[in-house]
Amino acid sequence: MGWQSWLDGAAAAREEAGLTRRLRPRGPDDDVVDLAGNDYLGLSRHPEVRRAAADAALLWGAGTGASRLVTGTLTLHGELEAELADWLGQPGALTFSTGYHANLSIVGALADRTAHVISDAHIHASLIDAVRLSRAQLTVVPHNNVAAVHAALAARPGVRSLVLAESVYSVLGDEAPLAELAEVCRAYGALLVVDEAHGVGVHGPGLVHRHGLAGRPHVLVTATLSKSLGSQGGAVLGPRAVLDHLVNTARPFIFDTGLAPASAAAALAAARVARARPDLADTIRARVTGLAHTLDVPAPAGAVLSVPMPSPEAAVGAQADLLTEGVRVGCFRPPSVPDGVSRLRITAGAGVTEEEWERATKAIDSVVGEVR
Amino acid sequence: MGWQSWLDGAAAAREEAGLTRRLRPRGPDDDVVDLAGNDYLGLSRHPEVRRAAADAALLWGAGTGASRLVTGTLTLHGELEAELADWLGQPGALTFSTGYHANLSIVGALADRTAHVISDAHIHASLIDAVRLSRAQLTVVPHNNVAAVHAALAARPGVRSLVLAESVYSVLGDEAPLAELAEVCRAYGALLVVDEAHGVGVHGPGLVHRHGLAGRPHVLVTATLSKSLGSQGGAVLGPRAVLDHLVNTARPFIFDTGLAPASAAAALAAARVARARPDLADTIRARVTGLAHTLDVPAPAGAVLSVPMPSPEAAVGAQADLLTEGVRVGCFRPPSVPDGVSRLRITAGAGVTEEEWERATKAIDSVVGEVR
Repeated sequence: MGWQSWLDGAAAAREEAGLTRRLRPRGPDDDVVDLAGNDYLGLSRHPEVRRAAADAALLWGAGTGASRLVTGTLTLHGELEAELADWLGQPGALTFSTGYHANLSIVGALADRTAHVISDAHIHASLIDAVRLSRAQLTVVPHNNVAAVHAALAARPGVRSLVLAESVYSVLGDEAPLAELAEVCRAYGALLVVDEAHGVGVHGPGLVHRHGLAGRPHVLVTATLSKSLGSQGGAVLGPRAVLDHLVNTARPFIFDTGLAPASAAAALAAARVARARPDLADTIRARVTGLAHTLDVPAPAGAVLSVPMPSPEAAVGAQADLLTEGVRVGCFRPPSVPDGVSRLRITAGAGVTEEEWERATKAIDSVVGEVR
Repeated sequence: MGWQSWLDGAAAAREEAGLTRRLRPRGPDDDVVDLAGNDYLGLSRHPEVRRAAADAALLWGAGTGASRLVTGTLTLHGELEAELADWLGQPGALTFSTGYHANLSIVGALADRTAHVISDAHIHASLIDAVRLSRAQLTVVPHNNVAAVHAALAARPGVRSLVLAESVYSVLGDEAPLAELAEVCRAYGALLVVDEAHGVGVHGPGLVHRHGLAGRPHVLVTATLSKSLGSQGGAVLGPRAVLDHLVNTARPFIFDTGLAPASAAAALAAARVARARPDLADTIRARVTGLAHTLDVPAPAGAVLSVPMPSPEAAVGAQADLLTEGVRVGCFRPPSVPDGVSRLRITAGAGVTEEEWERATKAIDSVVGEVR
């Protein structure tokens, strides 16, 4: 088959299934209440964070101009890494140009054909790609099933094993059994990699920290700078020996340009604001709990409520209705959902005012009530 | 083997081979003449580019807060994409948070198990990873060998094929035979993907454009925003149908946060400066040619001179000697070099003054003369 007919066929299949995605650009200041994004603490627009980004662009220039291994490592990266490590209670941190690269790197640098990766069924696309790239032996275990992790580790004794989990899962919004996972990993000499993309900020220094697991040498953390920290980039946190190994072997670290000064400075400023303002996380908890009660869905562990909808079309329709009411919510549809169930995705962030939040939740209650 | 002994063993093996890499942070204003980076036109520190980055951070906030498919697409991304497409003579462009992701995305979205990828032996790590992720059938052909590409295409008639090349190769610094590659791809109904990371800016709108291939529907371009454009990010340029396919299927596009406003605005400003100032590219050509003559190495097609050295240690030693003279150059060592030959990597960019350039090249001539 030729390329054009292959592309046409794929486009027609998407259209037929009602799954065509189109980009909808937004301006700098629309008057919509935004409950669709991942700027959980509202720090992307915090005055100190914006100012830090702007000042860094003026001082350092717009880019780092090279790989971190050449001349792309700035003292600013060191400051950010020290702040993140201190906040999350880790020996060290290494930043990447995106959270995707942090995940590709940690798995790619540690796992190879001789390693065994045990992955929760609901881990993020970046970790799935990371395992594929690593060529490691893979066991996918049912979601949050510690017994299955235990069995997988027991099945290959003596093999270097890596267990992958998220502290808060993106689509289901639930929490990993971190303490149990860490314990079974310790018992088998395995490493546990916890993606804290939706945990850090929403739960202060994250759930690994909250469970007393921060700094344990067999528990590694990856984090994003683009959600609660309102910027761009990602980080791996853990023992120095692991970070040194990444510096020397992680291809998405070695063969990529260092994180832009504005993004690094913004994440640093945001981390400081988040540490100084625990009330922001409290606001999220209160909003999440309240809205979950109103909609009669389980309160998630993170900031995002997942509201199952009868079909992709129903989800898209409700989303459009809400937008006409001035409320933007997200929408999970295949192939972004591991179980095929379409959902509204509602972020109960701390970045909107109390008045906006009340107006938005009233509209949501009304529109969702009609559909379900 | 346990994790700790595995990490220790890998570290010891690197140390033994003299290949341990350590990060060396730099401050915002060191007085070294920097010939190590990829900021070829010196635009990272151009006043208009810095200002654009700072203004965008203040106006839009530090991050986009979501995937491009949710609320992470800004009208600013649209402006940048329109500018890049117009400059490079392409129907459209799509930006990514890094050039690595642009390459992962174009190959991952187009190639699958049923496709055939024909890759030059010297393509960038990101394209190698992209092919591995795609699970496509892979043929690696000798560097710049059009006959081998021809033979590989002829061997699998009727299979959807993708040929991967760089317009200017990073390590060898030579140019791909783009016209011949495009012709053989056309004859077989294959797509040609050209990574213009080192071509755009150094050659104005790039070598695809220079060869009259821009806008040909079977020639796709990837570009980076972090080299000549002095910022962070990457782009894919080509027909609308291909870009729509990426929006709908490319995992590193869908599952990543949109490019930060400051980086997008900086790249936009840099593209405008690059278009208005063709003399910057002329300066690079003159400097490359002059220094190549002095060092008696072939003049590269791009801005980077590769100077082969007898060993990794000799390369590192010369690099250190030059740094004491106030000149920073790069160094290619295994595993970043496909052929195992260590090299000094000297960027003949337009970002240093004429006086700095003369001082630097005198020092290089002297130090390199002693070693070789």
